[in-house]
Amino acid sequence: MGEPRYLTGDKPAIEEFLSKFDTFLFDCDGVLWSGDHIFPRVAETLEMLRSKGKQLVFVTNNSTKSRADYKKKFDKLGVPVKVDEVFGSAYSAAVYIARILKLPAPKNKVFVLGESGIEEELRDENVPFIGGTDPSLRRDIEPEDFTNIANGSALDPDVGIVLAGLDFHVNYLKLAHAFGYLKRGATFLATNTDSTLPMAHTLFPGAGSIEAPLVTASGKSPLALGKPSQAMMDAVEGKFHFDRSRTCMIGDRLNTDIRFGIEGQLGGTLAVLSGVNKKEDFLGEGDGTGVKPAFYADKLGDLLG
Amino acid sequence: MGEPRYLTGDKPAIEEFLSKFDTFLFDCDGVLWSGDHIFPRVAETLEMLRSKGKQLVFVTNNSTKSRADYKKKFDKLGVPVKVDEVFGSAYSAAVYIARILKLPAPKNKVFVLGESGIEEELRDENVPFIGGTDPSLRRDIEPEDFTNIANGSALDPDVGIVLAGLDFHVNYLKLAHAFGYLKRGATFLATNTDSTLPMAHTLFPGAGSIEAPLVTASGKSPLALGKPSQAMMDAVEGKFHFDRSRTCMIGDRLNTDIRFGIEGQLGGTLAVLSGVNKKEDFLGEGDGTGVKPAFYADKLGDLLG
Repeated sequence: MGEPRYLTGDKPAIEEFLSKFDTFLFDCDGVLWSGDHIFPRVAETLEMLRSKGKQLVFVTNNSTKSRADYKKKFDKLGVPVKVDEVFGSAYSAAVYIARILKLPAPKNKVFVLGESGIEEELRDENVPFIGGTDPSLRRDIEPEDFTNIANGSALDPDVGIVLAGLDFHVNYLKLAHAFGYLKRGATFLATNTDSTLPMAHTLFPGAGSIEAPLVTASGKSPLALGKPSQAMMDAVEGKFHFDRSRTCMIGDRLNTDIRFGIEGQLGGTLAVLSGVNKKEDFLGEGDGTGVKPAFYADKLGDLLG
Repeated sequence: MGEPRYLTGDKPAIEEFLSKFDTFLFDCDGVLWSGDHIFPRVAETLEMLRSKGKQLVFVTNNSTKSRADYKKKFDKLGVPVKVDEVFGSAYSAAVYIARILKLPAPKNKVFVLGESGIEEELRDENVPFIGGTDPSLRRDIEPEDFTNIANGSALDPDVGIVLAGLDFHVNYLKLAHAFGYLKRGATFLATNTDSTLPMAHTLFPGAGSIEAPLVTASGKSPLALGKPSQAMMDAVEGKFHFDRSRTCMIGDRLNTDIRFGIEGQLGGTLAVLSGVNKKEDFLGEGDGTGVKPAFYADKLGDLLG
C-alpha cells in the first residue's frame, strides 16, 4: 500500500478526495470533538458535505449512550444531525440480536452488563432483557447470592445471551450473574472491546476492561459488535445500503477506525490527527501494524479547504 | 517423568512416601475441606504427621482471609493449627513488599484492590496502604472523580505499588484509581491470579478475573505472589527454612499446587483427588500440560493407611 495522501491545505487534493465518495462514516470522539470540546469548523464541514449531497453516518463505539442520547450531545455542541444518522455499538448489538442472531423466544432474553444506552436500544428492537441498571443488582454480594447463583434459583431460565459493555456500576454480584449465565452456555456478546475510555484528557478503564473479568473467568471471548468488528460494518450497511467502494471511513484511531474501514473494503479511509494517533504512527514504517489510512489531515475542518 | 505412584490402600508405599519428607506444604481448599465441609480423617492425618515430627505449612492462595482468619476457620472445623503454620497469598504479598521490594519510604504506600485479609497482613508488616475496604471508595464514580483522578488531585503522591486480589466490593471508582496509579508507574502486584473461585459447589470469578480490568487497561501483567509463583515459594522457604529435597507439596490442582512444587524443585508432590483435578488429568497423556505429581491418593486421609 502506498503512503497516505496529506489533504490539509491542498485544495485540488481535497476536491479529488470529496469526488471519490458518496458516503462518509465518522468516528465521533477525536474527530468531531474531544469530550465536551468541539473542534473548529466541524459544523461547517458537515454542512458542506451535506450540500454536496453526501450521506453522513456517525459510527461510535460508546455503548453507554443510546442514539437519542447521542443526538442530544450533537445538539448541545451545535452540530445538526438526525437520530437515524447515528450508529452506536449498543444499537449495533441490539440489531445483531434482534435481526441476525434471532434466538427463538422465550430463550432470547439478554443479561446486560452495561448502562442505559444498551437498555434503550434493546427496548427499541423489542429484545427482552434483565440486569443493566436494575437497582436490585446495585448492591454487595451476600452469602445467599453465592448459593442461589450456584443452584440456579437466582438465574433466569430464559437468558440465552450475555451482552457486556462499559458499566460504570460494575460489581461482583453482576459479574457473578453474568458468569453463571456464560457457564450455562449463554452466547457471549460485547458492544465493543476498547480497553480504555478517553475522558478528561486521560484514559480510564474502557468496555474491554470491564468485560475482562468475564473473559478471564469463562475462558471465552465475546463477539464484539463495535469497531473494528465487521459485524458492525454489516449492520451499518444493512441499514444505510451504501456502495462500499464509494464510502470513506473518517477516524482518529488506526486500530479501530481505520482498520474498520480497510477490513470493510471501503473505497477509502481518512485519518485525522486531532485524536489518539499521530502521523508517525502510519507514515513510513509507522507503528509496525501495517494499518495505514489512504488519506490524512490535521483535522476534519481542513476539508473546507 | 514416570507415572505417579498411587498410595491409597498401599501401606508399604505410604511408609516409604512418609519417610522421604520432613516438611509437607498443604493446599487447603480441595485437600482439607471443600467450603465448610471437612474431609474424612483430616485432623487425624495431620496429628499422625506431627507425631512423626513432620513440619506442616498450609499454603493458600485465598487473599480475602488473613492468617488469623484462616486460623479461625481451622478451629471451627476442628483442625488444630498455629497461626504461624499458615501462609496465605496476602501474607506472601506483604512479606514481598516489606522485605524484598523495600521501596524507600514514603513512596512505599500501597493502593489495595482487595479485602481485609490483605489489609491485616500489610498492617502486620508495617506497610502503609490506602484503598481496600475504605468505605469512601465503596460508591459510584461521579463526574468530579474523573476530573480529580485525571489531574492527579485524587491520587496519593506516595503510592508506589498497586496490590490487587479478590475484591467482592470491586467497583469502577476503585479500578479507576488503581489504573491511575499504574499509569503513573506504580509497581503492579497481585496476591494470586486464579481465574475462578470454588464456592457452593461451583465456580465464581476469582482474583485473576477481578484483576483483569487492570491488566487489560494498562497492558501490564502483575507479579503474582501466590501459587504457582516461585516468589511465594521463596517467601515460604525464607520463613520456614526447610530442605526442598525433603519437602512435599500436597494439593488438588495441577496448574497451581503441583506446578508450584515441581517448579520449586521440591523432593515430591502429592495430588489428592478430592478437589479440582481427576486422575485422568495426569495419568498417561493427561491434560496435555505435562504437569504430573510424583504421588497421588484419593484423599488426604488415605495417608493413615
